[in-house]
Amino acid sequence: MRRQTKNILFLMYDQLRHDYLSCAGHPHLETTHMDRLANMGVRFSNTYVQSPICGASRMSFYTGRYTSSHGAQWNNHPLKVGELTMGDHLRAVGMDSWLVGKTHMKADEVGMSRLGLSSDSKIGARVAECGFDIYTRDDGLWAQGPDGFYDNKRSPYNEFLKSKGYVAENPWHDFANAGVDENGDVASGFLMMYADKPANIAEEDSETPWLTSQAIDFIEGRNGDRGWMCHVSFIKPHWPYIVPAPYHNMYGHNQVLPPQRHAAEKTDPHPIYQQFSENQIGRAFQRDDVRNTVVPAYMGLVKQCDDQLGRLLDYLEDSGRIKDTMIVLTSDHGDYLGDHWLGEKDLFHDPSVKVPLIIFDPADLADKTRGTVCDHLVESIDLAATFVDVAGGDVPDHILEGRSLLPILHGNQPADWREFAVSEYDYSATGAAVHLKVAPKDARLFMIADRQWKFVHAEGGFRPMLFDLVNDPEEFFDLGGDQTYADVIAQMYARLGAWSRRMSQRITVSEQEIISRRSGGSARTGILLGLYDGSEVSEDLLEKYRGRAPKRPGTGKNSQTR
Amino acid sequence: MRRQTKNILFLMYDQLRHDYLSCAGHPHLETTHMDRLANMGVRFSNTYVQSPICGASRMSFYTGRYTSSHGAQWNNHPLKVGELTMGDHLRAVGMDSWLVGKTHMKADEVGMSRLGLSSDSKIGARVAECGFDIYTRDDGLWAQGPDGFYDNKRSPYNEFLKSKGYVAENPWHDFANAGVDENGDVASGFLMMYADKPANIAEEDSETPWLTSQAIDFIEGRNGDRGWMCHVSFIKPHWPYIVPAPYHNMYGHNQVLPPQRHAAEKTDPHPIYQQFSENQIGRAFQRDDVRNTVVPAYMGLVKQCDDQLGRLLDYLEDSGRIKDTMIVLTSDHGDYLGDHWLGEKDLFHDPSVKVPLIIFDPADLADKTRGTVCDHLVESIDLAATFVDVAGGDVPDHILEGRSLLPILHGNQPADWREFAVSEYDYSATGAAVHLKVAPKDARLFMIADRQWKFVHAEGGFRPMLFDLVNDPEEFFDLGGDQTYADVIAQMYARLGAWSRRMSQRITVSEQEIISRRSGGSARTGILLGLYDGSEVSEDLLEKYRGRAPKRPGTGKNSQTR
Repeated sequence: MRRQTKNILFLMYDQLRHDYLSCAGHPHLETTHMDRLANMGVRFSNTYVQSPICGASRMSFYTGRYTSSHGAQWNNHPLKVGELTMGDHLRAVGMDSWLVGKTHMKADEVGMSRLGLSSDSKIGARVAECGFDIYTRDDGLWAQGPDGFYDNKRSPYNEFLKSKGYVAENPWHDFANAGVDENGDVASGFLMMYADKPANIAEEDSETPWLTSQAIDFIEGRNGDRGWMCHVSFIKPHWPYIVPAPYHNMYGHNQVLPPQRHAAEKTDPHPIYQQFSENQIGRAFQRDDVRNTVVPAYMGLVKQCDDQLGRLLDYLEDSGRIKDTMIVLTSDHGDYLGDHWLGEKDLFHDPSVKVPLIIFDPADLADKTRGTVCDHLVESIDLAATFVDVAGGDVPDHILEGRSLLPILHGNQPADWREFAVSEYDYSATGAAVHLKVAPKDARLFMIADRQWKFVHAEGGFRPMLFDLVNDPEEFFDLGGDQTYADVIAQMYARLGAWSRRMSQRITVSEQEIISRRSGGSARTGILLGLYDGSEVSEDLLEKYRGRAPKRPGTGKNSQTR
Repeated sequence: MRRQTKNILFLMYDQLRHDYLSCAGHPHLETTHMDRLANMGVRFSNTYVQSPICGASRMSFYTGRYTSSHGAQWNNHPLKVGELTMGDHLRAVGMDSWLVGKTHMKADEVGMSRLGLSSDSKIGARVAECGFDIYTRDDGLWAQGPDGFYDNKRSPYNEFLKSKGYVAENPWHDFANAGVDENGDVASGFLMMYADKPANIAEEDSETPWLTSQAIDFIEGRNGDRGWMCHVSFIKPHWPYIVPAPYHNMYGHNQVLPPQRHAAEKTDPHPIYQQFSENQIGRAFQRDDVRNTVVPAYMGLVKQCDDQLGRLLDYLEDSGRIKDTMIVLTSDHGDYLGDHWLGEKDLFHDPSVKVPLIIFDPADLADKTRGTVCDHLVESIDLAATFVDVAGGDVPDHILEGRSLLPILHGNQPADWREFAVSEYDYSATGAAVHLKVAPKDARLFMIADRQWKFVHAEGGFRPMLFDLVNDPEEFFDLGGDQTYADVIAQMYARLGAWSRRMSQRITVSEQEIISRRSGGSARTGILLGLYDGSEVSEDLLEKYRGRAPKRPGTGKNSQTR
């Protein structure tokens, strides 16, 4: 029987580095099930996110558009009403679109209110939830300070913990994200000195197993013929860096890779890079004690994710869903973990801007590519187009800016694949912009990367950055101020120019509609331009403009001048 | 008593050339009342529209944004749901926004339907009508061919004519836009050979007097304290080129200015320019007989517009509204009328892309600039910002891309005014794109004009165009292929690049909100990054993460490792 794809399971981890998978070369971390998935499908080894920050990156995954096209350029920037997401595109071609987990979506409440949209309504709820129907939404960060919670939404995970008897004001923090110190006090995961402690929670009740169970429950509850796309969006291995036993001490200091950093990076650094390397996060991750405490916890979190992936894959095999369900595994961005003297993400070095991407397509057509690695330049916006293609729709390429990966999965290498990838970062709300006195409109970076060069343009009058990926694959030497590379920089500016002029907002008229209008159809509705005596066109076009002149009222005459 | 502006009367003509006003130097056409308005206010002599085509230009006037920002880049491209217009911005600061006449707005019915918006509702009607409340909407073009009407909306003007006893299937055409030939037959204004005939209608029933009456009726009906902005948008002097007596023969052949054209324009022409110059319209306007028939009719139409402006100004003076009503006069684009071997509009020579702009501000503060001419580079998007400023609001400069002209009207010259103006043209649906085999996405032109140079970039691999406005003010010599000007062209590309990277879609977060987020407010909601032992921050930020570790359920213990 011919195997065909009916459903899509779109798995996203948060802050998972592209190279912390054993199939991607990590020497100590065994990601058995990620590798298993890679053997079943195609691993895309050269995948860039559209912005190395959660919210902006996710809005690009979901809308299939660059961050400067959809405008939600940072965390908690509302996605403007009117932006379409994969949910809208998939439903239009008969596939449902569901969410289990995190989106970092912030609704455009002002825009919704202006249009009279309430999130109580079905339409309003989808607008408020990035086009998804909600099975479970939990953004994961139930941080709490003197001014209250960071996120005022309902936390299904905190409700789950309370239902299981975890008693605290904020069990997310006190159990899942904190250990216990030697005095029996809370050892918060927000303090990295505690990263080597086990989280104060039964492993099966921690975040990743809980969300995995939610995903299985979702799939279990599906029935009927209608296909679904389910975005299962995990909260980990994102900080707080703390993990329950037995993962907390599964990795030790001697399995921590040395930081990829070089003294040259501190010599005449680009001012924006310098700001990030000198902020509190950068300074912390420059410390060996911090790395040696945090990185094993991060590895433990990844290993837990991997084990839970195994559980999910086993379920799909046991239930038979593996036969008709595409599985996509990726992340929203990476984590510097001290590489380049940096922590977190935000800039465009590979550990931050590259992500893992593995796609298993159950269809027969994909058999010939199973277990292969594709190093084409892939962008995260390609997934929305891929999903529409999988659902059998025509990709609306006047809206979606990515390209379907399905031909590649089926062994057909497109001849005209993109020559460079683009990523953007809006640092307008950061301390770097404050210190550099950059106006919000100018605090923006644009990356153009091909196979040899990675170029970063900074608005606001700064020089660009440039790395030679062939001769300096670790990206230690910023050539952006070196006149030797003026030609490369000029070429990159030409590419940036062409990309910046892209047609991103003409979303109400398809390419095909425009071509159909070229036939001059308006002549047939009376728009006749440039005619002197009518001999220029056929008589039928003039018929409505011919005939006996009518009489004007009152006068009983017409204005005949003779 | 101090005079202050309460209302705005925003007058737009359709296809009125910037230089067909006597105050702008036309030697034969006396625009008495436009000149009168210029004497009352400021004439902006260097005003560019954002696109030299009705629909796109108007959507830029109304949204205050470039065409590639709002996306409605050609006639009848729906303005996408979510785009804000001056109506939205003005209502937000307490000023109503009304329409009398034409907008060329095409509603985004797909987008509205997706959001459950019906044009029967108050909100839906505004979305469908470009943010205006409708007093009268009549787009003017009731053209009719074998496939029916070009515009299927209701025509208030046709209803008016029928109510006055003008009996025909389409009285707009047969009376207002046609004369009578020597046989007593319809002499359609669509055939330019009839342009010298009087339209078969009483002058007071023709389009411009009718819309002027509608405007007066609107103002007459206003009462109460709430200020209003009324967009009175005339249909003329746009083709069909035919006008009722006595205007039809007010001007003769010897008052037709010779065409501004040069043999050099036909030598090695830019391929896109060549296409337009060789299309049916271009060929027609290259004929002297066509120009000698059409231009006097065009001048008559302008003169009629001017007389009706006089009637409106008289009404405002008699009613006292002149004391609190700003009057803005402009057009959506010009008309080549045979200049540069072209007809109609579409390209970026001054006769097409420049428009008249006169603003009368009744406020005392504007007394010192009355009767002056300002040659700053002004863009049509500046009006939306100006109106918000007049209404007392803060200009939302994360959405509106233009700048308020109010400081200039009040005699304050901004030190940092723009150095170049931008206009765009999307020719994807035209015959030029067909003949040149240009894909819809690439059929786009971008103009950058400063005081010395006018540069046009064409997507799709064409060379740019370049005109030296100082040494060749008539724009006859295209220097775009001349290597002598490589530096100028490089500078223009740098400007185009900077402009193309502008932040146009981050419309849900204001600059001020971003600055307020820079204070690191998320630390006070528990987001603590880069901490090792907590000594990096004040104790109160850690309070929620401190305390006695809670007991896990079941086990009666916590995970304390000691």
